This record gives sequence, C-alpha cells and structure tokens, in this order.
Amino acid sequence: MTDITNQDIIPNISVDCVIFGFHENELKVFLLNYTGTNLWALPGGFIEKNKTIEEAGADILKERIGLENIFLKQFDVFSNPERSKHAPEILELIKKIGRYDVSVFQSRFISIGLYALLDHTKVTTTLDRYSDKSKWVAIDKVKNTILDHKEIINTALKTLRLQISYTPIGYNLLPQKFTMPEMQSLYETILGKKLDRRNFQRKMNAYNILNKLDEKREGVAHKAPFLYEFNQENYKEALKNGFNNSW
Amino acid sequence: MTDITNQDIIPNISVDCVIFGFHENELKVFLLNYTGTNLWALPGGFIEKNKTIEEAGADILKERIGLENIFLKQFDVFSNPERSKHAPEILELIKKIGRYDVSVFQSRFISIGLYALLDHTKVTTTLDRYSDKSKWVAIDKVKNTILDHKEIINTALKTLRLQISYTPIGYNLLPQKFTMPEMQSLYETILGKKLDRRNFQRKMNAYNILNKLDEKREGVAHKAPFLYEFNQENYKEALKNGFNNSW
Repeated sequence: MTDITNQDIIPNISVDCVIFGFHENELKVFLLNYTGTNLWALPGGFIEKNKTIEEAGADILKERIGLENIFLKQFDVFSNPERSKHAPEILELIKKIGRYDVSVFQSRFISIGLYALLDHTKVTTTLDRYSDKSKWVAIDKVKNTILDHKEIINTALKTLRLQISYTPIGYNLLPQKFTMPEMQSLYETILGKKLDRRNFQRKMNAYNILNKLDEKREGVAHKAPFLYEFNQENYKEALKNGFNNSW
Repeated sequence: MTDITNQDIIPNISVDCVIFGFHENELKVFLLNYTGTNLWALPGGFIEKNKTIEEAGADILKERIGLENIFLKQFDVFSNPERSKHAPEILELIKKIGRYDVSVFQSRFISIGLYALLDHTKVTTTLDRYSDKSKWVAIDKVKNTILDHKEIINTALKTLRLQISYTPIGYNLLPQKFTMPEMQSLYETILGKKLDRRNFQRKMNAYNILNKLDEKREGVAHKAPFLYEFNQENYKEALKNGFNNSW
C-alpha cells in the first residue's frame, strides 16, 4: 500500500481497536509500544476519505498488527476536547517516522471505539513502523497507556460484560466440544467473578444455543462432565437478533 | 445563543438523535419536517469544537426541538462515504436560512447515533428554524426520511430491543405503581411481539428490580392484579452495571 497523507484522511476523527484475547481462563488486551518510549497504545489510526469506520478498523488491524478477518464492533465514542494531547516523545516519533504530518496528531480528534474478542493463542501479530514491541496484557495489569486508552479499554470491557447477557460468545474461544464448567469459566473470566453453577447452567440452557452430546469428557475419574457443542443455527440467529427469543 | 459558523464546528462529523416515545402500548419516533419539503429527519447537527458528543447531543435537542435533560446513549456510527448526499431542496433551504455555509452539508459526514426513550406525552417540543412541522410517528410508519435516517432509526430500534435484555427500563414510562401486565405490555411494545405471561414474570422477578406491593389494582371485578413499584436502589444499580448480577 502506498503512503497516504493528511489530505487523504478525515480530520479530527480516529478509530481505536480494543482487541481482547481469551485463553485458558485469562482475559488480555493487545497493546503496542511506541518505539523508544515506555508508552503503550491500542492499535488505532485515522479514516481514509473513501472508507467506512468498519473498513478503517480492518485496515488498521491489518497494517498495524497484521490481523485480518476480525469482526469489530463499535461500542462508544470518546470525545473529550482535551483527550488528544499527545506526549512530546510521541510527537517526536511521529515527526521522524510518521505517515502523516504531525499536525494531525496535534489537533483535537474524536475517537470511535471498536472492539473484538478472540483466542489470542490462535493469531499471530506483526509490528508496524511505530512500534518495536507489543504485548497481550492481563486486563487488570494495563498501565502506561497513552491519552485516554485506559478509559477506552475499561469502557470496552464494560460493554463486553453487558454483551454476554444478550448475545452468544464462545465460538472460536472454546474447543469444538466443551463441558459446561469450561463454558462457565469463560463467562467467569469475562465477568471477573465466580458464578453459581446451577444458575449458570439453567440460564445457558434457556439460551438454546448448545447441543448436549451423548459423550463425556474422557480421562476424568468420576463424575465425568457431559460434552456440548454449539448449535450453529441457533447461535447464528442469536448473534444476529440477540437472546430476545428467550423472552 | 449567538450564531455559530463553519469555523466553529468539527468538519465531517454529525450527531443524529433517535428519540423514541412510548405511551399506552405505542412506540413512536420523533421526526422534523424540513420546511417546504415533504422530507423528514431526525433531530441532528454538528459538533462545536469545544464540545463532547454528549454535549453536542444535548445542544441539538435543546436548540432544535426544545428538549432538555434527556439521557442520550451512543449506539452506532454511520459512515458510508455515500450517505451524506442531501436532496437539492434541502440544500436550497440551507442556503436560504442555514446557520452554516451550505458547503458543510455538501461534504461527506460521518454520523454518530444517539438514542433515548421517553414518554412522549410528558414532553413538549418546539420547532427550530429549519422546520415548520414535527411528529411522533409509529415506528412501522416511518417514511420520506432524508439520507440514511431510516437505517439509523432501525439500528437504534434493534439496539433498544437488545438493551432491554441487559438493562432496566420502565422508570418514567409506567405509572409509579403498575401491574405486571402493564410492564409486560411495555416490553411487548418495544419488542413488537407477544410474550408468554409466566416466562415474563419469572424473568422480571429474577431481575430483582421490582417491589411487589400489598395492594391490587382497583376497579377490576375479579382477579385484580397486584401492584408493583420499582426498587429504586436495585434499579439504579442495574442501570449502571446491567443485569449481570443475575448471573
């Protein structure tokens, strides 16, 4: 892709992507380091004049961290007029190696927040020109982030926690066949708290997105738990229209 | 308020407000007519340089339709590069009476969608300079809207329908004391479908936001239904953190 300049982007708007990674009862978020600083940032960028927000988000993930085919969901807009005052070392870095003139980074910009949830052990990320390090960091260990990125992460987390009450999750995060305790662990990890086993099972069954299989988890001595798989059709329907059919 | 000009606003971004009105089993949306045209629009506008999105939304509601103290929630962003091609009669009207130079309306702009739900019989609206008519129109009767405003309304409706699965509604929409059938009617109106009475009651009780009173609806011959009121504390808690405590 050829370089784009200030003239090619919409001024005063940016997009920031909160990529949550779940694996084995840990919830993490992806951060990029700005080379030569101790500052970390969400993958973000500007919007080219002929692109939608969704396209801009996909471009940013591809160009900045090498991720493709990630479904990003818009969750909030961050518009405090004071939010976009970059640290001097970031502005220095942009002046040296930035794709845009530094003036873009010195203006006020409103950021549109997008988020995604994936199994971070299944993806490989690369680094862009601004960064020489990246990390998946536990959500309670986020620090040294630029601007209001910590607030953006917290708001995305709050949205994710609400989201699991009205739309299904788990596909691509759990093995193809999984146990109810594994499903419960996923929810507990996202919610950051322990749940009641019976309540959870009742609620999950009411969502009608699981097929209970006639198989049990092998290698467990006694009380081996039954295996489940997602009911593809109902899962897709619930993704599209939420759990409202459970009313 | 003094007039503001193109220089005072952020270019290429607008805000559109979807105001849903509920009353007696009807769900409506507020639309403004552009004077001298047969075109209808959501109350919308631009963002002054020193304002947040939330402040811009409040300013727009106050200045365009005279509404104050309405809680607006951001729900999506509309960014199709082709979305902002105004009809010639709108551009003519703007040229004649607009607060901004018409060039603002001829550029591409990305719209940030905000929505609110209120009892429309409890509010009085006024008209701004662009409009000589307004209406609360049933959501299935929306037509002759400008740009992608119909899509914005549909997306807001979808969000509202999901929202009632994870956050409480009803306060300011129902009388202070209400029956379970009245609560159910509110949900049925928003969801646009009939619900099972027992399921509804079980789910609503699980949310733990209602106090059952030791009173029944008067004037009903037999099987008089019990009255309920909102449990203020739990309602506020659920507004803030969703129904996740029901996990």
